Amino acid sequence: MTRNAEAFEALAALLGARFTRSQSDRDTHGASEAHFANMPPDAVVYPDTTAEVAQIVRICAAAEIPLIGWGAGTSLEGHAIAPRGGVTVDFNRMNAVLEVAPEDMLVTVQPGVTREALNTELRATGLFFPVDPGANASLGGMASTRASGTTAVRYGTMKSNVLGLEVVLADGTIIRTGTRAPKSSTGYDLTSLFVGSEGTLGLITELTLKLQGQPESISAAVCAFDDMHGAVNAVIATIQSGIPMARIEFVDRASAAYFNKSASAGLPDAPHLMIEFHGTEAGVAEQAERFAEIAGDFGAQGFRWASKTEERNALWAMRHNAYRSALQAFPGRAPITTDICVPISKLALAVEETAAEIEASGIPGPILGHVGDGNFHALLLPLQGDAQEWETAQKLAANMAERALRLGGTVSGEHGIGMGKMKYMIREHGDAWAVMGQIKNALDPGGVMNPGKLVPGN
Amino acid sequence: MTRNAEAFEALAALLGARFTRSQSDRDTHGASEAHFANMPPDAVVYPDTTAEVAQIVRICAAAEIPLIGWGAGTSLEGHAIAPRGGVTVDFNRMNAVLEVAPEDMLVTVQPGVTREALNTELRATGLFFPVDPGANASLGGMASTRASGTTAVRYGTMKSNVLGLEVVLADGTIIRTGTRAPKSSTGYDLTSLFVGSEGTLGLITELTLKLQGQPESISAAVCAFDDMHGAVNAVIATIQSGIPMARIEFVDRASAAYFNKSASAGLPDAPHLMIEFHGTEAGVAEQAERFAEIAGDFGAQGFRWASKTEERNALWAMRHNAYRSALQAFPGRAPITTDICVPISKLALAVEETAAEIEASGIPGPILGHVGDGNFHALLLPLQGDAQEWETAQKLAANMAERALRLGGTVSGEHGIGMGKMKYMIREHGDAWAVMGQIKNALDPGGVMNPGKLVPGN
Repeated sequence: MTRNAEAFEALAALLGARFTRSQSDRDTHGASEAHFANMPPDAVVYPDTTAEVAQIVRICAAAEIPLIGWGAGTSLEGHAIAPRGGVTVDFNRMNAVLEVAPEDMLVTVQPGVTREALNTELRATGLFFPVDPGANASLGGMASTRASGTTAVRYGTMKSNVLGLEVVLADGTIIRTGTRAPKSSTGYDLTSLFVGSEGTLGLITELTLKLQGQPESISAAVCAFDDMHGAVNAVIATIQSGIPMARIEFVDRASAAYFNKSASAGLPDAPHLMIEFHGTEAGVAEQAERFAEIAGDFGAQGFRWASKTEERNALWAMRHNAYRSALQAFPGRAPITTDICVPISKLALAVEETAAEIEASGIPGPILGHVGDGNFHALLLPLQGDAQEWETAQKLAANMAERALRLGGTVSGEHGIGMGKMKYMIREHGDAWAVMGQIKNALDPGGVMNPGKLVPGN
Repeated sequence: MTRNAEAFEALAALLGARFTRSQSDRDTHGASEAHFANMPPDAVVYPDTTAEVAQIVRICAAAEIPLIGWGAGTSLEGHAIAPRGGVTVDFNRMNAVLEVAPEDMLVTVQPGVTREALNTELRATGLFFPVDPGANASLGGMASTRASGTTAVRYGTMKSNVLGLEVVLADGTIIRTGTRAPKSSTGYDLTSLFVGSEGTLGLITELTLKLQGQPESISAAVCAFDDMHGAVNAVIATIQSGIPMARIEFVDRASAAYFNKSASAGLPDAPHLMIEFHGTEAGVAEQAERFAEIAGDFGAQGFRWASKTEERNALWAMRHNAYRSALQAFPGRAPITTDICVPISKLALAVEETAAEIEASGIPGPILGHVGDGNFHALLLPLQGDAQEWETAQKLAANMAERALRLGGTVSGEHGIGMGKMKYMIREHGDAWAVMGQIKNALDPGGVMNPGKLVPGN
């Protein structure tokens, strides 16, 4: 009997039917939203408690079996697939909202709670959790990948919205990071270390998150620009003016056309900005007026305001479905989704260079993005099975990453590294990448936590 | 010749007169704002460049000589004194503002730049650096201690205002963390790891900081309450209402009396709140009106508004001089300054328990604080040379720390651990403290970086 078989027997004894080696379970957990081949784990476990997670980790670590966390499977760089096999820890059963503390504007959740489930649960409290990556991701996954999305320009990324964590380390130790106080200066910021560590340092089993008060008033709008240059420069000017936008999204001409097809949006054939303001009634009105003035200077026209909840929901649903709309517009094409993030001053240059290069390639590649953060996405759509188009699309994505580095930015604003962007880590971080490796080795000397991802030699 | 002597010769050869073992230099760098005995280093160096810092570190590390960073010497828990001797690296000559990038709202500085010097330099740009701990601290020191202060309630602590660092590690390697992009999801958040690490992982030699636009309109006020309970509960209600205060400070009855003495403030004999709003003219007016309404519900009266710059400066100067005002009021008494931070819902309880206990002790101990963050300070003033009062004051400070832990908070919101609060680390962090130790050992296996502080076995 091999060591694996012994470990699997121990897991089966611990978990019963919540340990499985079925092909369908393995295949589900070997797949991702990205373009990687299916890389299934050897087994999948569905723990109910932190104590079970700790036991699972001890069993696997002793047998040198890789451990991969799994939330909703919505990550975009293959973070949760299993290139070296192992055991995938699926957190879907650990999906309880453990405590809502409205007076402290905090909530404590298990990692399998999705952001939509959390916000549904919070509805009656007048509070909400603001981080919105589009997909209905799990909060454990969002913390692990340092997710952000449309509202980060106002409310920050997961980095600033996680107050504390419970984590099972590679040796099975359970630790807690952070306190319930809003700030602290008592030692290394372990919360920020685990947020964004992509499961390579431990498995998150509980999260304490900051909540926001539902704004008294919300107003959203979409407006068109003659060209990309005008739209992006309007964003830069708005940011520099200090208007506290809650969202500001760039939508290119092609995406607007897909919205018209998929959601009968009736948008003009032009690049657009989609914006939202949160505040008091008077505050929102003032922000909207100032934005309209600034955007007008850059050629904005055809403003369509949405202050009713349903209109706003329709607007953001359209934005969140951009990926699906583009895919529908191009049957027979498969997506390579990538994101970069640059300093605000380089945003126009970065977007325009990228758009020009994509256009010259002949491959469809709509550009959208959370431009208030300097962050944008390309959805490259090479023909399925066309090796040359595939290679061209890969080259376009690589050039975007190189462009981000050249302009002082980062190769990913929010999608992360996973399987996809390891090759840029040394370029972006230099000797600091080795420091990440030293930390990894200190906390996971056996290298069992999500091997093949993020850190050198992993 | 001992190893130390050889190393000191090498440092003298490298730095000339910028290496010194003079008694006065050693004594200056063995002193602190806290109540610790003078603990001088064996030598002090004044580097001019990062390359020199790296050479200094290599020379000292090879000889196992401790290295302690020094900025402005304003830290409050003895972070920069030398309990095991060694070499203090004084960054006062590395005080250049290297680059102001208004279009990206960033600045890059050397660690010896003070926050006041930076804001003077920025005056013409319409931007400012918001973190304001009161003291004119160096930015390297502020990052090392994760400083915050009066404006953190709006703009965050150093954690959210440092975008990237250059750090010299214990082996002399120079790394850079972060990029110029507003966010990133490419690996461990090393910037957040070094911020708050109190010099135990490396020496910060350069910082890229986020800037804020100077608000169009600012309004500040002070108002009185019948009792502490009303004042603190007004803060809690204001926070929960979502009013975006730029500052909100609690000042107890005793401190108000000292302000009257030292600054002829003319305040009533009552606890006070000092507040400030930043925004557009209409926005500030609306915030002020709403605050006045909420505070009124808790008995606020005697509002004094300061919208002129000089009036506001006078108000905050008074607040920043609270420490000195209290000392002046009690000649012959020596201060023990301490801070804790609790969840907002526990703030009234924490402040009131603390005040009652201090009052019962008979030792003067004004309470002030950045109550918008749940953070408050006590300035305990035992009689110099009175062993019993000294012990009582120490016990009061210890009880505050225990109270913070009992209420789900942290033993320091912003002063940090340094020499003073090591004993609470295991209580606050449990097994997570050992994880800090593992990281320390991985990055500084020789233990040369600021030994005796923050991490276990250090």
